[in-house]
Amino acid sequence: MEYGKMTPAQLEAEYEVVSKRFEELKGKGLKLDMSRGKPGKEQLDLVSDMLTVLQKPEDCLEAGFDVRNYGELAGLPCARAYFAEILGCKPEECFIGGNASLTLMYDTIAKAYTHGLLHSEKPWSKLDTVKFLCPSPGYDRHFNVTRSFGMELITIPMTETGPDMDAVEEAVRDPAVKGIWCVPKYSNPEGIIYSAETIDRIAHLKPAAPDFVVMWDNAYCIHEFEGDYVPFPDIISLCREAGSPDMVFEYASTSKVTFPGAGISVMASSVDNIKYMLSLLTYQTISYDKVNQLRHVRYLKDMAHTLELMKKHAAILGPKFRAVLDALDREIAPLGIASWKRPTGGYFVSVDTADGLAKRTLALCREAGVVMTSAGATFPNGSDPRDRNIRIAPSLPPVAELEAAIDVFCVCLRLAALEKLLGK
Amino acid sequence: MEYGKMTPAQLEAEYEVVSKRFEELKGKGLKLDMSRGKPGKEQLDLVSDMLTVLQKPEDCLEAGFDVRNYGELAGLPCARAYFAEILGCKPEECFIGGNASLTLMYDTIAKAYTHGLLHSEKPWSKLDTVKFLCPSPGYDRHFNVTRSFGMELITIPMTETGPDMDAVEEAVRDPAVKGIWCVPKYSNPEGIIYSAETIDRIAHLKPAAPDFVVMWDNAYCIHEFEGDYVPFPDIISLCREAGSPDMVFEYASTSKVTFPGAGISVMASSVDNIKYMLSLLTYQTISYDKVNQLRHVRYLKDMAHTLELMKKHAAILGPKFRAVLDALDREIAPLGIASWKRPTGGYFVSVDTADGLAKRTLALCREAGVVMTSAGATFPNGSDPRDRNIRIAPSLPPVAELEAAIDVFCVCLRLAALEKLLGK
Repeated sequence: MEYGKMTPAQLEAEYEVVSKRFEELKGKGLKLDMSRGKPGKEQLDLVSDMLTVLQKPEDCLEAGFDVRNYGELAGLPCARAYFAEILGCKPEECFIGGNASLTLMYDTIAKAYTHGLLHSEKPWSKLDTVKFLCPSPGYDRHFNVTRSFGMELITIPMTETGPDMDAVEEAVRDPAVKGIWCVPKYSNPEGIIYSAETIDRIAHLKPAAPDFVVMWDNAYCIHEFEGDYVPFPDIISLCREAGSPDMVFEYASTSKVTFPGAGISVMASSVDNIKYMLSLLTYQTISYDKVNQLRHVRYLKDMAHTLELMKKHAAILGPKFRAVLDALDREIAPLGIASWKRPTGGYFVSVDTADGLAKRTLALCREAGVVMTSAGATFPNGSDPRDRNIRIAPSLPPVAELEAAIDVFCVCLRLAALEKLLGK
Repeated sequence: MEYGKMTPAQLEAEYEVVSKRFEELKGKGLKLDMSRGKPGKEQLDLVSDMLTVLQKPEDCLEAGFDVRNYGELAGLPCARAYFAEILGCKPEECFIGGNASLTLMYDTIAKAYTHGLLHSEKPWSKLDTVKFLCPSPGYDRHFNVTRSFGMELITIPMTETGPDMDAVEEAVRDPAVKGIWCVPKYSNPEGIIYSAETIDRIAHLKPAAPDFVVMWDNAYCIHEFEGDYVPFPDIISLCREAGSPDMVFEYASTSKVTFPGAGISVMASSVDNIKYMLSLLTYQTISYDKVNQLRHVRYLKDMAHTLELMKKHAAILGPKFRAVLDALDREIAPLGIASWKRPTGGYFVSVDTADGLAKRTLALCREAGVVMTSAGATFPNGSDPRDRNIRIAPSLPPVAELEAAIDVFCVCLRLAALEKLLGK
C-alpha cells in the first residue's frame, strides 16, 4: 500500500517494523561502497591480457616509429584512428590523452580561462562573469571543474530526452553563458540517451558568446549493459553541418573498457580546434604515454573487437543493475515514495525520492555502513533544490554484497519517508 | 693556429679548404638529429624487462590495494617512497605524476596563474606584471612555460657554480619577481652542478613576493655518465631549515631512466604545499596511471638498484659524449673560436662560440643535413644576446652517426668563423 494512503496508525505500525529492521541491519556492521562508478574486480580481470601485449623492444615499433621515445604530441596515429572509429569522427580530429578524460576536460576549461578558446575575444579570466550550463541531475566532477574556476553554474532541468532545450536556447542568449556540460549517451546519473531532436537542437545552437563550448563527455559511448550497441551520431559532423564547426569538444576514454586507473583518453574536435589546442599543449608535454596507447590499440584492435569485450562487461554488469532495479521494484514501487529510470547502459541508477528525503536517506545508509554518492552531488554546488536525487553506483560490489547494500538502501528510504510523514 | 692570429692570406687559404670540405659534406646528403635530449635505442632496450613486470591480476595488488582501479590521487605509497629515497625527501612530500614532469611544472605555474600558490595574495592572472628569473643558458621548455602565461622573463647569468646569486638576490627584491627556474645538477645545457654555497643562498632567499617559487627541476639527479653517483642535498629540507618551507617545488622523472615517453614523474614540496596542490588537483584527475607507477617501482626497486641501471646507461652515453668532446678538442680548441664545458652527467654539451657565430653555424649545419637545437633556444624568448650558445645533444645517434654529425658541426663552426673574420 502506498504510504500516502495509509492512516496514521498504519504508518506508526509500519514505522515500528522498518525501525526494527534498520536496527538489525545496523547491527550487522556492514561496510559497503556504492559511491562511485568503479568497475568491479571481475571486470578488471577480463582484460588482464593487456598487461602482456607488449613484451619486447620490437613490439614497441608502430609504423616504423618507436613509441618508447619522445614525440607525437597529438598521440599515436593508430590510437587517433582507433578512437575516430569509436566516435564516428576523423583521426585528425582526435587528440590522445592519458588515463583520465577528466584531465582533458579540465585542460579545455583551464585553457579557456588562461588563454581563451579559438574564438574567444579574451581569456575567460579577464571577464567579470562566466556562466556555465549544468543539466541536472548531472555529474558532480563536471560541475566542479567549472566551479573551481569561479564560474557561475546554471541549472538546466533534464528531461526524458536530454537537457530541456527550450531552457538551453533561452540561456545561451546571454553572452556570459560560455558553455554546457553534456553526457549524451547514458547520462550520468539517469542513463538517458539524448534524442535525435535534442542533439540536432544542440548542434544548431546560436549562442551569443562566440566561444560558447559544448562539453560533450561521451563517457559511455559503447557502454551498453542490456542489449546491443546503440549507434549514436557524431556531434562533430553535426556541428560542422550546422555551421558551428568549432563549438564542440568531445571526450571519451577506456577507463571502463580496460583499467579505470590506467587507460587512455581522447579529446575530439574540429581540426582547427585541435590545432589551436596543440599550440597550447606543446608547452605542457611532449606527448601522453604512447606505450600505453599502443598497448591499448594492439589489445582492443578496433570497434568490432571492442564491442565484443563490452558484451563481456555487460554480462558482469547486467545482473548488478537488475539486482538494484528488482529490489526497487519490489520494495519501493508499491509505496509511492520514489521513482527511477531503467537505464540500459552507463554506470548509474538515479532515484528521485519524494521531496526532502535524499539527505536523510543517505545519512541513515551511512549509519548502517553503506556509503553512497552524497545527496546533492548531482546538482550544481552540491545542492539539490528538492533534496530528492540519489545516485546509485552498482558496479563495484559483487552481487551478494550489492543485494545487501540495496536492501539497506530500501529500508533507509522507507524509514526516511515514514519519519517525514509522521513528523518525527 | 688560432684564427685570430692568422694573416688575411692564411685565413683565405683556410677558407678555401674549409669551404671545400663543407661542400663535400653537403654532398653526402646526411640526415642527422642532435636537437633534443632523446635517449638512443640501446638505452630503451636496456629496460625491456619492465614491459613484463606486471603480468597477472595478482601482480597488480600492492599492499592490498588494486592499482588497476580508481583512487590514490597523490600516487601509490610505494612510488612516493621510491622517489623520496631518490630525492632525499619524505614520501609525504611527493606527488606522483604521469609520463612528463614538464606537465607537473606547467601545472604548478598554471595553478599559480589561475588560483595562486599557497601564500599568494591573489592569482597571478590578476596581477599586471609577473616576472620570472631564467638562469641562462637554460632550458627552453622551462622558459616557454612561463612565457606562455605572458610572464616577463628576466635573464640571470649562469656561472661555473650555478646562477649568479648576486643577481638573483638583487632581482628578488622586486615583488613582481615570482620565481626562478633551476636545473641544479647537470644543468641544461651546461652540465653545471650548483655549488653548496649557491644552493644555500637559494634556500636562504628572502624574496619580496610572499609566493616566490623556486622551480627545482632535478631532471638529472642520478644521471652521471662519468664516474660514480654524486650525492646532492635535499632542497626541501634546506628551505625548511632556512625558514621558507613552502618556497620550493622539486621535479624529477624516469624519462631518462626507463622510457622517455612512458615513465613516471614526481613533484615534491612541503607537506602543506602538496596538500594545497591536492586540493586543486582533485578537480583534474582521480590519479595518474598507477599501473605504470607499480610497474616502475617493481622494476626499479630502490635507489641502489636504480643506480646500477644508471651505470648501464652511462656505459652507452659516456662514449657518445667523449666522441663529441674529443672532436671539439681536436678540431676546434686550437682555433680559439669557441669554448665548452666538460660535463660528467646530464644530456648536453654546451658550446659558446665567439660572439655572433651560433645562428650562422647552425644554419650551415642544417644545410649539410644536421639538425641541432635552434640557436638562441637556451635564452629567454629564444634570443641569445651574444648569439654564441649552442646546445649539442649527443644521446640519440649511434656513435658512428654522431661522429659524422660532430664532424659536420666542427666544419660549419670553422666556416662561420672564417666568414666573419673575412667579412664575407
